Amino acid sequence: MTQVSDIIRSVAPISTNITHAIQTHLDDLTKPPGALGRLEELAMQYCLVKGNPLAKLEKMAVFTFAGDHGITEEKITPYPSEVTPQMVMNMVAGGAAASVMCRTAGIDYKVVDMGVKTDFPEMDGLIQIKVAKGTKNFAREPAMSTEECEKAIINGYSLIRQCTADIIGIGEMGIGNSSSAAALYSLYLDLPAKTTAGAGTGSVGELYARKVDAIQQGLDLHKSESAGNPLEVLCRVGGFEICGMVGAIFGAVSKRIPVVVDGFIAGAAACAASRIAPASKGYIIYSHKSAEKFHREYLETEKAKPVLDLDMRLGEGTGAILALQIIQQAMACYNRMATFSSAGVSGKDTDDD
Amino acid sequence: MTQVSDIIRSVAPISTNITHAIQTHLDDLTKPPGALGRLEELAMQYCLVKGNPLAKLEKMAVFTFAGDHGITEEKITPYPSEVTPQMVMNMVAGGAAASVMCRTAGIDYKVVDMGVKTDFPEMDGLIQIKVAKGTKNFAREPAMSTEECEKAIINGYSLIRQCTADIIGIGEMGIGNSSSAAALYSLYLDLPAKTTAGAGTGSVGELYARKVDAIQQGLDLHKSESAGNPLEVLCRVGGFEICGMVGAIFGAVSKRIPVVVDGFIAGAAACAASRIAPASKGYIIYSHKSAEKFHREYLETEKAKPVLDLDMRLGEGTGAILALQIIQQAMACYNRMATFSSAGVSGKDTDDD
Repeated sequence: MTQVSDIIRSVAPISTNITHAIQTHLDDLTKPPGALGRLEELAMQYCLVKGNPLAKLEKMAVFTFAGDHGITEEKITPYPSEVTPQMVMNMVAGGAAASVMCRTAGIDYKVVDMGVKTDFPEMDGLIQIKVAKGTKNFAREPAMSTEECEKAIINGYSLIRQCTADIIGIGEMGIGNSSSAAALYSLYLDLPAKTTAGAGTGSVGELYARKVDAIQQGLDLHKSESAGNPLEVLCRVGGFEICGMVGAIFGAVSKRIPVVVDGFIAGAAACAASRIAPASKGYIIYSHKSAEKFHREYLETEKAKPVLDLDMRLGEGTGAILALQIIQQAMACYNRMATFSSAGVSGKDTDDD
Repeated sequence: MTQVSDIIRSVAPISTNITHAIQTHLDDLTKPPGALGRLEELAMQYCLVKGNPLAKLEKMAVFTFAGDHGITEEKITPYPSEVTPQMVMNMVAGGAAASVMCRTAGIDYKVVDMGVKTDFPEMDGLIQIKVAKGTKNFAREPAMSTEECEKAIINGYSLIRQCTADIIGIGEMGIGNSSSAAALYSLYLDLPAKTTAGAGTGSVGELYARKVDAIQQGLDLHKSESAGNPLEVLCRVGGFEICGMVGAIFGAVSKRIPVVVDGFIAGAAACAASRIAPASKGYIIYSHKSAEKFHREYLETEKAKPVLDLDMRLGEGTGAILALQIIQQAMACYNRMATFSSAGVSGKDTDDD
């Protein structure tokens, strides 16, 4: 039986001893050195994670982790909780943005029920590894027990252990989960709810005020009990889909799979993983700057350079999908471009005048 | 026989009377309103250019326009002029970044010889509509005659008139052409060479100083003669590949094809087209912020929001290709996502408490 403590202990930093070999190949491609900008950095990171200067990128997979949140009892979101299972059905049926985009990009797509209130029939494209029917209301009690939290992490981890993709993207769906994400950022970075909470799917005016109050109430309740224990923070204010993403990150680390993280909520999972096992940072690629206001500040804190900045705030993995296409192109260039010698292209004049 | 004056006169602004129909459809898709951010704006612009709220995006094409530049006589670039035909061969053979990326993305790719010094054999994937074997040195005389300039515009225009793609991307290859682009920006925006000239493919130190001097010499020579005449500016300091791209933009306008413009040099063609026929602006999508320093300032001047910002400075159309993939995803969502009613997904609670 896999233990979370074993998973955490096994997270090893990416090795950088092949940096020179990768850079040499990048500089031999028929382009001025560095002219592909971020694409070269992405190819570098991809190969470093793989531990292979000849790494290939063939197969991509995206997972949308879904879960419900007890905090919605506080009436903080404009959409009712029923939207979570409705959107799961929509994603599985192929009508959601993430499903459409994955089809267009040739990316394998799966929805993962980590903790939706409703039960689903067996369906192609839906992986059912539900831990419980939604979390408890973290404004009033811990969102989940330690056992539930560990089970969710292990379920996410095991999912990726079985995955055969070369690179994965992770995103989420869950009414109320931007509140859970804000609470995680607040506890990990020691910030008040009013700093980390944004509009989510559309909490403005009174809804927003109630959202901030509910999150702050949760922070006041859980802060001292979880201080210095990043796993306990996750139990107290996290969500099952967020724990599943944390586990997925650890699963990716264990298989040397680069993991492309979607936006604000998936970012909270990356934040958690980075606190629980700091060496996991090297495997993470932040896909985009979300329009959710605190996300930019978090990325700056992490010194992370997101691939895209498209004012998106949909979740599901949509930002990760677009970034995957960019990374696919970076690796296509890395693997398939001609080299100066092979193409008979002259390099720079050596005589510089 | 097509005349440039007729082409210019026929440039009509995009019509915005279907804006409401497009917005209504965007807001009916299963996502919070506006949650796809820039993708929604791109879908809007695409449909407006097409003049059709039910527009589809099936076929994409990218053209790399190539030409040589007399200004290289001034020894301002680290790569010799021979690299232009070598890279054309590399692009046609499939080894250049743009060729690799188009193959990966399923985009039809063509290289267009507008004015390379070398003659090429007939080859699949190379369109030979050469006007002359390179421009004259604009630091000392006009880069081309009025007849040559008009011929290059008409050749680019006719190329796109025959194109069956739903959307096109344009990029370039030509040693010396970042100097020509800088001179165009300088004359159109009334700025000195030291503001608009950057490193290009790697002109630093003394090379850069000579580059700025040569461009400024050209500006001093041509400024008063071309003042108030944007077509004359193009004749005096442009390049054949740049004129070809100007013509391609007008060709796209005439067929209601959105045209995705690559980086700094393709941007100078967009700048020229926008000065020659201001209504063409509505058809142009700027793909990315180039790392070439003045490009950002130009985009701000135009109030243009580029799709990507990846520190790229390769040209060829590489930025346009990546942006085309984003636009393809925007239109995939627009055309294929479920609507709230069709998917049985609840909208926002109407009771806001």
